[in-house]
Amino acid sequence: MTDAHEEAGEAARWWATAVSHIEPGSIELRDRPVQDLIGTAGLVDIIWLMLRAGLPTPRESSLLEAALVAGVDHGPQAPSIAAARMAATCGVGLNNAVATGVNMLGDAHGGAGQQCVEMLTDIRDLYASRGSWQQAAQEVMADWQSRSRYLPGFGHRFHPVDPRRDPLIGLVRQAVRDNVVGGDFLHAALAVEAILERRRAGARPVPMNIDGATAVIYAELGFSAPLARGLFVLSRSVGILAHAWEESGQGRRNKGPIPRSVLPARLPQPKDA
Amino acid sequence: MTDAHEEAGEAARWWATAVSHIEPGSIELRDRPVQDLIGTAGLVDIIWLMLRAGLPTPRESSLLEAALVAGVDHGPQAPSIAAARMAATCGVGLNNAVATGVNMLGDAHGGAGQQCVEMLTDIRDLYASRGSWQQAAQEVMADWQSRSRYLPGFGHRFHPVDPRRDPLIGLVRQAVRDNVVGGDFLHAALAVEAILERRRAGARPVPMNIDGATAVIYAELGFSAPLARGLFVLSRSVGILAHAWEESGQGRRNKGPIPRSVLPARLPQPKDA
Amino acid sequence: MTDAHEEAGEAARWWATAVSHIEPGSIELRDRPVQDLIGTAGLVDIIWLMLRAGLPTPRESSLLEAALVAGVDHGPQAPSIAAARMAATCGVGLNNAVATGVNMLGDAHGGAGQQCVEMLTDIRDLYASRGSWQQAAQEVMADWQSRSRYLPGFGHRFHPVDPRRDPLIGLVRQAVRDNVVGGDFLHAALAVEAILERRRAGARPVPMNIDGATAVIYAELGFSAPLARGLFVLSRSVGILAHAWEESGQGRRNKGPIPRSVLPARLPQPKDA
Amino acid sequence: MTDAHEEAGEAARWWATAVSHIEPGSIELRDRPVQDLIGTAGLVDIIWLMLRAGLPTPRESSLLEAALVAGVDHGPQAPSIAAARMAATCGVGLNNAVATGVNMLGDAHGGAGQQCVEMLTDIRDLYASRGSWQQAAQEVMADWQSRSRYLPGFGHRFHPVDPRRDPLIGLVRQAVRDNVVGGDFLHAALAVEAILERRRAGARPVPMNIDGATAVIYAELGFSAPLARGLFVLSRSVGILAHAWEESGQGRRNKGPIPRSVLPARLPQPKDA
Repeated sequence: MTDAHEEAGEAARWWATAVSHIEPGSIELRDRPVQDLIGTAGLVDIIWLMLRAGLPTPRESSLLEAALVAGVDHGPQAPSIAAARMAATCGVGLNNAVATGVNMLGDAHGGAGQQCVEMLTDIRDLYASRGSWQQAAQEVMADWQSRSRYLPGFGHRFHPVDPRRDPLIGLVRQAVRDNVVGGDFLHAALAVEAILERRRAGARPVPMNIDGATAVIYAELGFSAPLARGLFVLSRSVGILAHAWEESGQGRRNKGPIPRSVLPARLPQPKDA
Repeated sequence: MTDAHEEAGEAARWWATAVSHIEPGSIELRDRPVQDLIGTAGLVDIIWLMLRAGLPTPRESSLLEAALVAGVDHGPQAPSIAAARMAATCGVGLNNAVATGVNMLGDAHGGAGQQCVEMLTDIRDLYASRGSWQQAAQEVMADWQSRSRYLPGFGHRFHPVDPRRDPLIGLVRQAVRDNVVGGDFLHAALAVEAILERRRAGARPVPMNIDGATAVIYAELGFSAPLARGLFVLSRSVGILAHAWEESGQGRRNKGPIPRSVLPARLPQPKDA
Repeated sequence: MTDAHEEAGEAARWWATAVSHIEPGSIELRDRPVQDLIGTAGLVDIIWLMLRAGLPTPRESSLLEAALVAGVDHGPQAPSIAAARMAATCGVGLNNAVATGVNMLGDAHGGAGQQCVEMLTDIRDLYASRGSWQQAAQEVMADWQSRSRYLPGFGHRFHPVDPRRDPLIGLVRQAVRDNVVGGDFLHAALAVEAILERRRAGARPVPMNIDGATAVIYAELGFSAPLARGLFVLSRSVGILAHAWEESGQGRRNKGPIPRSVLPARLPQPKDA
Repeated sequence: MTDAHEEAGEAARWWATAVSHIEPGSIELRDRPVQDLIGTAGLVDIIWLMLRAGLPTPRESSLLEAALVAGVDHGPQAPSIAAARMAATCGVGLNNAVATGVNMLGDAHGGAGQQCVEMLTDIRDLYASRGSWQQAAQEVMADWQSRSRYLPGFGHRFHPVDPRRDPLIGLVRQAVRDNVVGGDFLHAALAVEAILERRRAGARPVPMNIDGATAVIYAELGFSAPLARGLFVLSRSVGILAHAWEESGQGRRNKGPIPRSVLPARLPQPKDA
């Protein structure tokens, strides 16, 4: 009987959570009754609350909001957007179409924000002993570039300059001046950018991109690295939904990636090992 | 040559969109440069903009925000939340965990909002000729209940009274009083609720649930029925992410639905036809 | 105490299943020890066993196998294939890429097999009272076409004649002759095809497509309508995996639907209602 | 004009593939007309063909088939199975339910096969210079265990002995004796197993599990490491589909992970940094 008691409690503990608590007639989010939040708390505050248990200050909330707004969309050239639009023509629900797009926000597509927070954190940690942002950035960049030819958060296959960088970095600068955030991650990112600019003098620039600029904000606000990806997911879901919705009104069925008149080229068969 | 020109243009037209326009160095959302929106527009405003091309008034935005806040979570008993938590222990990215949860927000789980907007719209349309909300509701309910034993947006398997109903409906009432919205969908929903209450006198109540209360808001604000599901997806994604994130910090691997000590019972084999 | 006991048992019953039974050191599939199946049962037999509890005869298995082989792929023009290929370039696992493709096999993309089985079943049921396949088909087709402009399982946006139809239908004919299957669904499908051919004399033909030809097989073998979609999922997963795997070896990152030199066209903004 | 021509050709090349070639009226899989395969090639042969361009010998095909059969299911305790069953109650299609399950077959859940092939390959490569399987295994294991506490393909949270190991390894032994495969990966895996057994004398054993035993087969047959995960996806999809289908017949709506009478326990809020 003790065993049975323990098993029943075990099932309850198996799903134990601090995020929310639901009983018949009662819904608490982070120990706060949901009815106290509806109509008083903003959506961005609730995102913060659900992820971190506390509430942000208004300035913290604004900074997070700017990052979330900046990443909502990058058009049908982004594979996540294109896939969601195609899904919307295949006879599935809008939720399935959104899930299809979100599922593709992996390490190479939005997930770079997570890696960028990690890299900036490495730089900040090294700065403590090196005393120079440039020196710290150089060492950490060398380490990252020895493992991959991409530096997460910098460079864009498409934009020579990413129009989202300046307004986002401007907001972080202001927040540092006003003591809303500390500024370490901003300094780390600017050091990386300066080094890249010197290296590539005259060549195609490698500007800070959306993953980089938002990573600075998420890190300055104290979010863990994996949440850089998680927050990007929330942000880009808006664009994914908007595109899936527009597509569903255009009347196509089983929309492929290219017009039906274009046939994919034929590649030679590989030799099996 | 004309053909080739046309094919190239055809590919561009195949992916034509009004949602966003991206060129090297330029990102426009609904024809607005993204840099003009970052730091000035709120996330809820951007959701509206992306879905509908215009911007909401502050009062419209607040009403939408309340609905989005109300739906963020319903704990691990909700299959979408449980699945996302389990996914987070299987060695996939947070984006994959969120997609797993969002994928399950189907007709029976969040998708009810879409059906509820359709039902409320039917009632409003019939009201024009019947002149009585009660009469219109009764006829439309009979029609819906002849097809399904669930009335979308009403009743909850768990809550005798949904704590999210009152604050949401209160906000709509206020918005009607202030001419922010028209009130037809509110009247339709209240008529349904009143009929259900009379019918079930003494028995377990069938209160308006979160799908119903938010459907009233989405419909009052002029969103199409499928967007009731789409907006719920954005809202619930917050809770899905928060749960997946918490779970990923709890150290389990391949978390199943019940503790490992409990073995699923064995059912007899069905007879094949 | 009773409560606790009951709760533990309730959790076991909550997940009760006849599909498999797992205990420490023991795995049974449909009450058969897995070690008795490995090396003796074929994959197609196991698919049948898992879905229906019994095992097929060799001829039934062969017929099912032909249907599963026929549907494995339709190239990157199919949205499911294209999406899986794009996913494979986004830094997610092969399982996530396959899931992305499978998720898109909805009502309009592969799901038509399910509807086709339903339509053929309607025809077979009506045949009992009408005594004429043509008459039964005509009535059922009229009913379906009053609800949708697509007749599930017939017509192809791409192929004037589907090269998979003849070999599949040939195998069914042979199986009817040999009393492997009854032939009712074959007669129903051929009746539909004949009516469509007469109607469209001279115009673009509306041949039986892969969904239709495999629906005949699945229905003749006694599978329920939703399993026509389910079996197609298993079949098409092969092609989805093959394409995702090929793409992952081609070195692209974040592959969009069209080459980067082509910019999606700009549509005018819709007027919000 | 050259530009336009090039753009059209560029779109065709963007989707170039050797897997299949589709033209109106023609479907080729790996350059073979589909009508030549239907009714003659088996499903397992087609899986091989689609992934590798050639066809397997009958003995190779049987070995692959045994591995695919072995992995089809592990009951509702597996998160992928549970999630698919829950999805099937949420009002989505069977394809969406299967995708939900497949999406969870990540690095920690089935993806271990991929890592196991990599580990066995490391051992085989080191064997060339060490001349001793035991020595090579010991060094490679030390390296893997310095990075993770899990050795991919060995140990099971549930089974003290995995009933799938012996029949699978028996088939590989036979195939080595008959020169169907070379045996290097078998030797590598057995060396790991022997070392683990000596180490844990008396303690809970760490047997080769399904990921390990099938990894041996996939590697012996010459499949690349990521395809160990890919092939597992095809195999487990069968069980995922069977469970989703059974669940959809049990009449639940929005099935959560535990019975409704059990409420998830409340955890204390974490302290935000």
